[in-house]
Amino acid sequence: MLGASGYTGAELLRLLIRHPRVEIALLTAERRAGKAMADVFPQFAPYKLPTLSAIEGADWQRLALDVAFCALPHGTTQKVIADLLERAPGTKVVDLSADFRLADPTAYARWYGHEHAAPQLQKEAVYGLTEVYRLQIKAARLVANPGCYTTCAELALIPLLKANAIDPDEIVIDAKSGMTGAGRAAREDMLFAEVSEGFHAYGVGHHRHMAELDQEFSLAAGRDVTVTFTPHLVPMNRGILSTIYVRGAKSGARSGAKSGTKCAPDDLHALLAKAYANEPFVHVLPFRTLPQTRHVRGSNMTFIGVTADRIAGRAIIVAALDNLTKGASGQAVQNMNVMLGFAETMGLEQVALFP
Amino acid sequence: MLGASGYTGAELLRLLIRHPRVEIALLTAERRAGKAMADVFPQFAPYKLPTLSAIEGADWQRLALDVAFCALPHGTTQKVIADLLERAPGTKVVDLSADFRLADPTAYARWYGHEHAAPQLQKEAVYGLTEVYRLQIKAARLVANPGCYTTCAELALIPLLKANAIDPDEIVIDAKSGMTGAGRAAREDMLFAEVSEGFHAYGVGHHRHMAELDQEFSLAAGRDVTVTFTPHLVPMNRGILSTIYVRGAKSGARSGAKSGTKCAPDDLHALLAKAYANEPFVHVLPFRTLPQTRHVRGSNMTFIGVTADRIAGRAIIVAALDNLTKGASGQAVQNMNVMLGFAETMGLEQVALFP
Amino acid sequence: MLGASGYTGAELLRLLIRHPRVEIALLTAERRAGKAMADVFPQFAPYKLPTLSAIEGADWQRLALDVAFCALPHGTTQKVIADLLERAPGTKVVDLSADFRLADPTAYARWYGHEHAAPQLQKEAVYGLTEVYRLQIKAARLVANPGCYTTCAELALIPLLKANAIDPDEIVIDAKSGMTGAGRAAREDMLFAEVSEGFHAYGVGHHRHMAELDQEFSLAAGRDVTVTFTPHLVPMNRGILSTIYVRGAKSGARSGAKSGTKCAPDDLHALLAKAYANEPFVHVLPFRTLPQTRHVRGSNMTFIGVTADRIAGRAIIVAALDNLTKGASGQAVQNMNVMLGFAETMGLEQVALFP
Amino acid sequence: MLGASGYTGAELLRLLIRHPRVEIALLTAERRAGKAMADVFPQFAPYKLPTLSAIEGADWQRLALDVAFCALPHGTTQKVIADLLERAPGTKVVDLSADFRLADPTAYARWYGHEHAAPQLQKEAVYGLTEVYRLQIKAARLVANPGCYTTCAELALIPLLKANAIDPDEIVIDAKSGMTGAGRAAREDMLFAEVSEGFHAYGVGHHRHMAELDQEFSLAAGRDVTVTFTPHLVPMNRGILSTIYVRGAKSGARSGAKSGTKCAPDDLHALLAKAYANEPFVHVLPFRTLPQTRHVRGSNMTFIGVTADRIAGRAIIVAALDNLTKGASGQAVQNMNVMLGFAETMGLEQVALFP
Repeated sequence: MLGASGYTGAELLRLLIRHPRVEIALLTAERRAGKAMADVFPQFAPYKLPTLSAIEGADWQRLALDVAFCALPHGTTQKVIADLLERAPGTKVVDLSADFRLADPTAYARWYGHEHAAPQLQKEAVYGLTEVYRLQIKAARLVANPGCYTTCAELALIPLLKANAIDPDEIVIDAKSGMTGAGRAAREDMLFAEVSEGFHAYGVGHHRHMAELDQEFSLAAGRDVTVTFTPHLVPMNRGILSTIYVRGAKSGARSGAKSGTKCAPDDLHALLAKAYANEPFVHVLPFRTLPQTRHVRGSNMTFIGVTADRIAGRAIIVAALDNLTKGASGQAVQNMNVMLGFAETMGLEQVALFP
Repeated sequence: MLGASGYTGAELLRLLIRHPRVEIALLTAERRAGKAMADVFPQFAPYKLPTLSAIEGADWQRLALDVAFCALPHGTTQKVIADLLERAPGTKVVDLSADFRLADPTAYARWYGHEHAAPQLQKEAVYGLTEVYRLQIKAARLVANPGCYTTCAELALIPLLKANAIDPDEIVIDAKSGMTGAGRAAREDMLFAEVSEGFHAYGVGHHRHMAELDQEFSLAAGRDVTVTFTPHLVPMNRGILSTIYVRGAKSGARSGAKSGTKCAPDDLHALLAKAYANEPFVHVLPFRTLPQTRHVRGSNMTFIGVTADRIAGRAIIVAALDNLTKGASGQAVQNMNVMLGFAETMGLEQVALFP
Repeated sequence: MLGASGYTGAELLRLLIRHPRVEIALLTAERRAGKAMADVFPQFAPYKLPTLSAIEGADWQRLALDVAFCALPHGTTQKVIADLLERAPGTKVVDLSADFRLADPTAYARWYGHEHAAPQLQKEAVYGLTEVYRLQIKAARLVANPGCYTTCAELALIPLLKANAIDPDEIVIDAKSGMTGAGRAAREDMLFAEVSEGFHAYGVGHHRHMAELDQEFSLAAGRDVTVTFTPHLVPMNRGILSTIYVRGAKSGARSGAKSGTKCAPDDLHALLAKAYANEPFVHVLPFRTLPQTRHVRGSNMTFIGVTADRIAGRAIIVAALDNLTKGASGQAVQNMNVMLGFAETMGLEQVALFP
Repeated sequence: MLGASGYTGAELLRLLIRHPRVEIALLTAERRAGKAMADVFPQFAPYKLPTLSAIEGADWQRLALDVAFCALPHGTTQKVIADLLERAPGTKVVDLSADFRLADPTAYARWYGHEHAAPQLQKEAVYGLTEVYRLQIKAARLVANPGCYTTCAELALIPLLKANAIDPDEIVIDAKSGMTGAGRAAREDMLFAEVSEGFHAYGVGHHRHMAELDQEFSLAAGRDVTVTFTPHLVPMNRGILSTIYVRGAKSGARSGAKSGTKCAPDDLHALLAKAYANEPFVHVLPFRTLPQTRHVRGSNMTFIGVTADRIAGRAIIVAALDNLTKGASGQAVQNMNVMLGFAETMGLEQVALFP
């Protein structure tokens, strides 16, 4: 695992230690190289784990890893993975950064402010929203694990957009995240005393997860889709809740509702329930029941609820997941399971931790 | 003060103890009658205060209160105030419950599930959103203090609706509140372990504050307005933040923007900045700067920010206040100041408590 | 499982759902009988579970449970278990309440304020501190699972008292617990807004866990031991941290230190490290390293650290565990594993959830 | 005010803005010089305040401040104040750092790891525990405002040590603080996600506030006193609670209890109640009632409670204050009031903010 000293790294390790088919061969952490994992995250003190090392010294050829998880900061990963795959072409990679999520390198350059450093690799990268791209992931060597906000909103909306069941021009996503989504960097605005007992929006109008939403929603709808998306920070550690305002569309050929009428909120609910009926990690609640982040904490589950707005024709969809699990490291393990032919739920069976 | 054992009662007392023109003559709390206020809220131990008593024994005529604050539960207040005003017609009343907020008794019956018990008094009740109804409040005997969610959303939108600057059919209010908004009732779903480390929506599609929003927004727009409104609970004590999605309207005669063009986000900002330029308790932040609840905690301030959505023609307005202060007891004191001819800011000068 | 609607019930279920040898046959919850578990704890929505039922209708003979977990309130359990064991003598019982923890029924009556309802059963009950009573638990039909505070303090001190390594008359235990330790009763003083952003002591001088401490410490020391014990409430959900102040004793025959000299802090550390060297669920940190509750959250681990006080001869021992896991339901599953001959760690391998 | 960008600076400003006799002439913040205070602490946006400046450019002679508050980091203050007082000898100084708290420069060097940079000034510095040194503060030019932990423990114990009412060799202070006590530095271990939902001890055996405790307790007892002191961090913003374990002493000439008998817990309570009977900012609760930090939040109050331990002869004293108010900036304003001859409570009358 590359980048073990951050929160997604710790979450990966929490899951992988108990995965019956995984043996951990390498843990890197640049600034903490030479230290024990327990010095960086004391919860791992009881476990035997490799000492933290630097990426530079890694001999990818000799290591011949079956799979490498890459939990490095955005913008640093393209070069590292290109180098790794050059020396060890048989290693499969699940990248948790944003570096390979955008299929179009010019979109990457626009949103991230610098050129894509491995555009040739980008071509083979598969977007790792498991429920949507399972077949492609099975065959992939490089999977770009989606963002936490995007996983949450995409699981809620992609089946509806595919079915032309909602108006793609009238989508408002008001998202709220726990603090671990912001990472472990020592920043004044993330100190406990700055964050607790308060609530605020951030990145309004320009959060980078919009790029992923645009890409995936446009693919699903078969036309350009631009949504309103506002993230907020909640004084809690884990969890994302997205409150999504939609308007039912006149159903066309692809929709499940009667042709010519508008999709009502319960039609939208039925579409989602059907789409996820056999998915182990997406649970659609009964119509009018809405999820809470605490009930998926520490699990790989996404809970989705649908209710009617009091304004006719509008529905409110609420989706909740744990940003570190299904929103990052859990989905990464899920993708590894698919890539390596393991049972998809292996090592991911933890029940949510509540209270 | 009637109803001193709840959170709005405690907040009123916090403010009134230090109000230079107020002497506290009566504190009622039905279930705690006979106890000291310090038994119910230990922070008041250092202060000399009346012993808690029951409403039933109060001799309103003899007490001849200048002003009575009524912080009783919704649905219990109409009868109590009618009785009080019958015996002491010279007493002025600021009611913090919802009992007199809806001008139309049939709307009251529909939203609250029972008949209005004092429809004749309703006629003289003035809706206590101070910045909007200051003149009427000055002359009123009975002021219905607005709800916390409604104060927050109405201060942000009423100037824009009055100016025809936004489309009244495209308003989405995604509101988030701290836990004190839910009161002090001993309920399982409000226990610390149920609420901390999590986030959820509630009352979706049917929260009672919608009735107030409908009434005030329709009055402001001069036509029927129905908005989408979704409240959420944040694991914090105090604060409301409303993220409001609007679409600029073609400006008409009443708007500040150039006739015939749509109001842009900065036009909306300019309208709000102008509307509140001289208001002591509403502060409009610079364009593109958005507020946080923590920066108004414990103060009577409302902070409002406006920014552009990335979708042309849409703006995002964020308003923040302390639900117990400007959202309840602070505005009640502000209204008392107006009713009794005191300086409007008297006793309300506290700077926000952050961190 | 009896008493599935409380926090220890939910935690038991979280663990048992994933236990490879357990099938859940019965879930009782008196006030919620007839409901689904997902109505009481929504995190269980994705799992197939028995409908909640009342105890009264349970046919213990026909059910012929291998093991029954009893997570009922204190004082209600003795009668229920006596009845169950009369009808199904082959069922083994792990009781999570305090009803069978005190060997002496008169001590029970004194601390709990009413007569013991099943004194004959008390004789066969084994105190379920697994690390200390493993052999007795293996042979037991009825195990009284220890309290959360007591598990934490006893694991830290029993090896030292057995070794005569500390002065039994100079022990101060300053304990701090998360809110789940107080249960799920709807009480005003446990509301979020009462508990967050604050800290306080409670039950000072008379908390009932003292009775267990007295019993077990006296047994370990071979003489009467009475300790100073002060519990506090922390605004967090899970975790107990006990800061324990001790004075090294002159080592006697049983101690590991050199005879005639006082046990120094590092001697105490060595004693604890040795005592728990092979224990899967007790981890002694390096000398001078102290534990944090967050690093054992959701796991069955206890972390213990020892450091020297600056006053010669005194040491400070800090122990941390998750009050719902090792402090309650995790230890209950550990005891079941011992009683039924399963591997002791089965179903308890979860790594702590941090952050 | 020097050092306006930290938490004690913000708290000072909160209080001083509303102080009727104070005009704010200068706000310094080295790294933020040139910015508005609202950029650093947005709660000050509605107020007219000086732009932040660097200390270097300050012309102390021309400014001729009546009083300077110094809220700079430990170790940087001695030189700054020496320089200020050389150029403006008539300015009075309240220093909130630790730089002038230790009367003995060699003790300073030992605890802080570097030489005292202004030993000549140290001679005139008065320790600013207002209730104990009021007369000396009245006459002082330079007041060293005490630490937060030390104010809390000293207010609880100094009257008892002066009266010889407790055994000075048997004092254990188990202290718990909110996160603002650790300041606003961007450190990984102070991030929200590291701190919330957990509890731990720190600085065990070597926290620098021990130096102040040693100094003041020894002065009070008339002999050398060394106490056991363990600080902990609570996931909350404000508040310190000290749980103090003491043993009653045989009363001597100075004690209030009957000569020859040991001071019982209620004797200790009576001594404290008498000592603080006329103090506006120390409130002794009824015997057996213990304080909570939340009930002093944002106020300058210290609440003290005393109860008996179940071990005869021992008492438990619990003291609570807001670390930023009475524990820092509130006491600084209190000292300014004394130094300048204002009413001691001026600007400090805020009632605690709860909930």
